[in-house]
Amino acid sequence: MNSKGLQKIFNPRSVAIVGATTKTSKVGYVVLKNLLDSGYEGKIYPINPKYEEVLGLKCYKSVLEIKQKIDCVLIAVPAEAVPQVIKECGEKKVGGIVVLSGGFEEVGRQDLAAQIKEYAKTYDLPIIGPNCLGIYNPYSKIDSIFFPFYKMNRPKPGGISFVTQSGALGSVMLDLAAAYNIGVSKFISYGNATVLNESDLLEFLGNDKKTKTIILYIEGVKDGRRLFNVMKRINKKKPIIVLKAGKEEKGKKAAMSHTGNLAGNYLAYKAAFRQAKVVEAKDVDELFNLMRIFSQPLAKGKRVGVITNGGGLGVLITDAVEKEKLELIEFTKENEQELRAIIPSYANPRNPLDMAADASVEMYQKAIEYYLKNNNIDLIVVAILFQTPTLDERLINVIGEAVEQKKKPIVVVTIGGDYTEAYRKIMESKGIVTFSSPNAAVKTLRKFVEYSYYIRCQINHLCEFY
Amino acid sequence: MNSKGLQKIFNPRSVAIVGATTKTSKVGYVVLKNLLDSGYEGKIYPINPKYEEVLGLKCYKSVLEIKQKIDCVLIAVPAEAVPQVIKECGEKKVGGIVVLSGGFEEVGRQDLAAQIKEYAKTYDLPIIGPNCLGIYNPYSKIDSIFFPFYKMNRPKPGGISFVTQSGALGSVMLDLAAAYNIGVSKFISYGNATVLNESDLLEFLGNDKKTKTIILYIEGVKDGRRLFNVMKRINKKKPIIVLKAGKEEKGKKAAMSHTGNLAGNYLAYKAAFRQAKVVEAKDVDELFNLMRIFSQPLAKGKRVGVITNGGGLGVLITDAVEKEKLELIEFTKENEQELRAIIPSYANPRNPLDMAADASVEMYQKAIEYYLKNNNIDLIVVAILFQTPTLDERLINVIGEAVEQKKKPIVVVTIGGDYTEAYRKIMESKGIVTFSSPNAAVKTLRKFVEYSYYIRCQINHLCEFY
Repeated sequence: MNSKGLQKIFNPRSVAIVGATTKTSKVGYVVLKNLLDSGYEGKIYPINPKYEEVLGLKCYKSVLEIKQKIDCVLIAVPAEAVPQVIKECGEKKVGGIVVLSGGFEEVGRQDLAAQIKEYAKTYDLPIIGPNCLGIYNPYSKIDSIFFPFYKMNRPKPGGISFVTQSGALGSVMLDLAAAYNIGVSKFISYGNATVLNESDLLEFLGNDKKTKTIILYIEGVKDGRRLFNVMKRINKKKPIIVLKAGKEEKGKKAAMSHTGNLAGNYLAYKAAFRQAKVVEAKDVDELFNLMRIFSQPLAKGKRVGVITNGGGLGVLITDAVEKEKLELIEFTKENEQELRAIIPSYANPRNPLDMAADASVEMYQKAIEYYLKNNNIDLIVVAILFQTPTLDERLINVIGEAVEQKKKPIVVVTIGGDYTEAYRKIMESKGIVTFSSPNAAVKTLRKFVEYSYYIRCQINHLCEFY
Repeated sequence: MNSKGLQKIFNPRSVAIVGATTKTSKVGYVVLKNLLDSGYEGKIYPINPKYEEVLGLKCYKSVLEIKQKIDCVLIAVPAEAVPQVIKECGEKKVGGIVVLSGGFEEVGRQDLAAQIKEYAKTYDLPIIGPNCLGIYNPYSKIDSIFFPFYKMNRPKPGGISFVTQSGALGSVMLDLAAAYNIGVSKFISYGNATVLNESDLLEFLGNDKKTKTIILYIEGVKDGRRLFNVMKRINKKKPIIVLKAGKEEKGKKAAMSHTGNLAGNYLAYKAAFRQAKVVEAKDVDELFNLMRIFSQPLAKGKRVGVITNGGGLGVLITDAVEKEKLELIEFTKENEQELRAIIPSYANPRNPLDMAADASVEMYQKAIEYYLKNNNIDLIVVAILFQTPTLDERLINVIGEAVEQKKKPIVVVTIGGDYTEAYRKIMESKGIVTFSSPNAAVKTLRKFVEYSYYIRCQINHLCEFY
């Protein structure tokens, strides 16, 4: 793999957009417009023989007409025209290529795909796609996602990277990250994987210093053995969270007509994920949950402490903790005495600690401090009914300060309408991991604890989770 | 049960608030303030011997001091003082009582609870609570929920009613309903169920003409046999969606210290739910999903048709359909020809129908019309990536018109940040059922199909789902 080329694609000093146009609903327009609006500071070359100028920039007939070096070429022309463009890119010795256009393997045009492969080999060109959304790097501002900003926000720079076979799936994850102000390192939608595949891209992210957590969405994979080895190696350094689609028979057919790849036997994938100890998500919402939990320090054990001002939430979390085979600690007599000094007289000093609907910010603060100090608690779940009159935004700071200590994983469960959702977003933007469902929170913690055990075992030669 | 009293509680011409106060963080203040701000048109009597006046209203020493009839008494005084207040309410012959205060069975004060029961019997008083959030009726504007409006919106009038043992759980559901503009009929948080229990309240809602769907959250139940019979009878007319908490051992203990009720054996509950054919939700988010799906016409079968502009979403939905044992129909050659006239040339006329990222509103419209006409499709899932440049809000009208025909259940799957979420809320307020997760959508449809089969079997002497 030409990984130097991938570096150039993600940090390009110059970008050419083949298929640039003035037609506002076309990919070639939206991508160019986005680059202009994003603050990208490199040189931009629109390419389209039909125009002299597009969006105020001089337009070129082909990449060969440009004298300067080109690091990254984004292609958005009809499938039939793509191979010739790639040939010219090879002759021009560009850094790398992203083919956004569809109309290849997924509709039976293996002939066109073969030509792309051939040119990639001849000219040693790194090519992402075709049939994809391409790339986004908030650090360099390179962005080939052909969705307008007002419809899809772009997230800020951070540590989460994406390798996704589906542009749709990837873009909704990015959009959610932006809405909750969660930072992203690299986004790669790779579509048909005609040249570069998921393993190549994982290798790239494994070496990318800014990437701390990797999200992988796959449908069909050509070389499963290689993917397994790559995942296993990288997952030890950076958690890989994987969502596999095309599990069932009809899902496989749908995958074939989506990106032209065989989805294979899910049981084999599942076994590989387990053996490589990567974290498997079962759905989009779980992917979003798992993606965020890895901002927390690894768990030292599986003993959970719960704090709440809504008894029902406490009961639901307790049920989930037991179902997921985590452990709800029981307080000692001594603990109970210590807790009585914190909580109201009518509340019970038990775990979950239900401080009832008139719990104050100060009570939460004392309870969280107590849970942080208590060495029998490995994970803290703070369930908050923000609707009560006695709580206010100071609670966000209290939790934020607890999270910043990085002593134990802390998560928040809070559910509600506009007011609560606004507070939830503020919390997320401060690095507090929040959930709007007790079960989702605990399921996420369970998978996080499993990964924590795995990593700690590498270091300490300890134990299995079960 | 004194059901005339319940009528009075929910449609009171006069309300007394015992424990009304000027202290802004107290229940007695928030409830009075909310009633004044809500547009409630009946007479309001603050009661507290300490004040001459509260919030501009004359304040009374006790209910006995008031000459006029009182339909509904809301009590927010310390537990010790509650029995005496109830005794006076009995002497005054009020319509009914809601006790908001906590400090009874849940903290071992069975003695106080016994006194409440005794007076309820002596004076034939319907009493909701104690240890609860009480009631809300958007039609009459009666509202005892002691959470300020700016922290928790109240939903508009509609057909969904709640019977919930947990105030927290109930309030987050109401708050979500308000955020998505979903209409509600009656809300009842009943806490310790000292006098009126879940069965009494279900009976009341069974007879309430405005109630179309019933949400039930229970932890512990005293008379399981009666609940089973009541559920079974009412569920045939109006779907009952139940969430049971306190399933696991520690969850049961948490439930006991929450509302002072034994949570019992979950397997027995589960069997009862199955036999009564009520719809069981496994978590808060599933409860929110199931609550909305019953606005759709009952399903005639389990054959699913999917339309999308995001291939990955189509694959994930397909996987879920198969996993949930619904049926993804395969199109005939004839269907395929008909579809080719609608979709772009590069798309495949298959189910899921993936019209790719440049699908237009018009394509969606034609596809939905085709799916509505096709008699082999019982349920329609429309997955939308609103982030693409070619879609706009006209699609909401297209789907709204399809839903209004009430021919088949239609649901939307759409996931994203602020823009998509805004559109999702608009859709919900127009009666379109939306989901932000493919799995959640299909799981909800599965349970909806099961209920549909059950009801259709009653009528047609047909079939079981399996």
